[in-house]
Amino acid sequence: MQKKSVAVVLCGSGYLDGSEIREAVGTLWALSKHDVTVQCFAPNDTQPDVVNHLAKAIDPSVKRNMLQEAARIARSEIQSLDELNPDLFHAVIFPGGYGVAKSLCDFASQGAKGSVRPDIAKVMNQFHTQGKPIGAICIAPALVALVFKGHGFQLTLGPYSDAAKEIEKLGHKHIECDVKSCVVDEKNKIVTTPAYMVDAAPLHEIFQGIEKLVQEVLRFRAT
Amino acid sequence: MQKKSVAVVLCGSGYLDGSEIREAVGTLWALSKHDVTVQCFAPNDTQPDVVNHLAKAIDPSVKRNMLQEAARIARSEIQSLDELNPDLFHAVIFPGGYGVAKSLCDFASQGAKGSVRPDIAKVMNQFHTQGKPIGAICIAPALVALVFKGHGFQLTLGPYSDAAKEIEKLGHKHIECDVKSCVVDEKNKIVTTPAYMVDAAPLHEIFQGIEKLVQEVLRFRAT
Repeated sequence: MQKKSVAVVLCGSGYLDGSEIREAVGTLWALSKHDVTVQCFAPNDTQPDVVNHLAKAIDPSVKRNMLQEAARIARSEIQSLDELNPDLFHAVIFPGGYGVAKSLCDFASQGAKGSVRPDIAKVMNQFHTQGKPIGAICIAPALVALVFKGHGFQLTLGPYSDAAKEIEKLGHKHIECDVKSCVVDEKNKIVTTPAYMVDAAPLHEIFQGIEKLVQEVLRFRAT
Repeated sequence: MQKKSVAVVLCGSGYLDGSEIREAVGTLWALSKHDVTVQCFAPNDTQPDVVNHLAKAIDPSVKRNMLQEAARIARSEIQSLDELNPDLFHAVIFPGGYGVAKSLCDFASQGAKGSVRPDIAKVMNQFHTQGKPIGAICIAPALVALVFKGHGFQLTLGPYSDAAKEIEKLGHKHIECDVKSCVVDEKNKIVTTPAYMVDAAPLHEIFQGIEKLVQEVLRFRAT
């Protein structure tokens, strides 16, 4: 049997303007425990903003590219999202970070009224149509909620919150979940875990949740 | 008894021009399993270079600050290295990355003839003089080797290599070590693990080595 392949979609490097670094690394760490090949992707496009992570303030003088910055996490082993062929992968996983809610969609500012980058929506639809699992970490379930508006998925953003309300407005069921665990929508093959939606969670507990998400994602067989 | 505190010293964010992101996250993950407080530090100074991690080439048009970039890994919970008071900490740990060999010292270009940033050398000397353990990951043992030239420490850079030869020229003993393990210099309280010096190592095995390093560092009592 051919080795399973998993795509990991990033969008920069930094919790305030890109992928949450620790969640991305946790995903790669959990995947490395399994006999799978992993390929990272990111949109080859300019970030909407760059945040000075020391000052926690937008630096309007700087432009950065999502693919180039994500390559820092991926140790240069990364491809443009344009090159992602879902036929070649068993599953796709989206780590969180504000970049997901600002760059891959505009959920951060628009909530349930937001829209998703067409290339991201296309990839998610392709995996889902092919009966392949999607994993979404932290705020990334909001991306799933927007793409599959009205589909009645079971998703978690951790404890109930304003963000969870927006998920519900999109016609999904928000399920509260501990940071060490994950929520599995068996029917739709969607797996979600809160990670840094639980702000003060110890890092090793966040990794436990991500590890479970990866296990559940890999459990599904493509139909 | 007062909770132990551990300082983690970073120098940017990215394996080619800063701290190796995964090793830094692995350090924080391993520390989070223990009942210790953790504080990240980095020099508040401009990086000698910025590398486009997609093209793997220096981008001379860009300047970045080590502290600001390291704040991405530290989720903004970071202080300038100037503020590190060794009296308040039980131990200090240095993750690797080319930044360590280019920004914190010039081992990458000068090998055994290299020199170390005075603020880094000062911190290391203070911890060592106070009988406190130092952990060094990946290429960071080269930093230890330069600061404590001629002290005859037992250090690892993984398999024997040209870099290991430079360590020996500095009057230390290089010990080969598996990526899942670490080398402990009991007398001098120096703990080292190869991490990405073993380029193709699976990430979870690198984390095992870092986890052992953290355990050994925390085992030492300050004298």
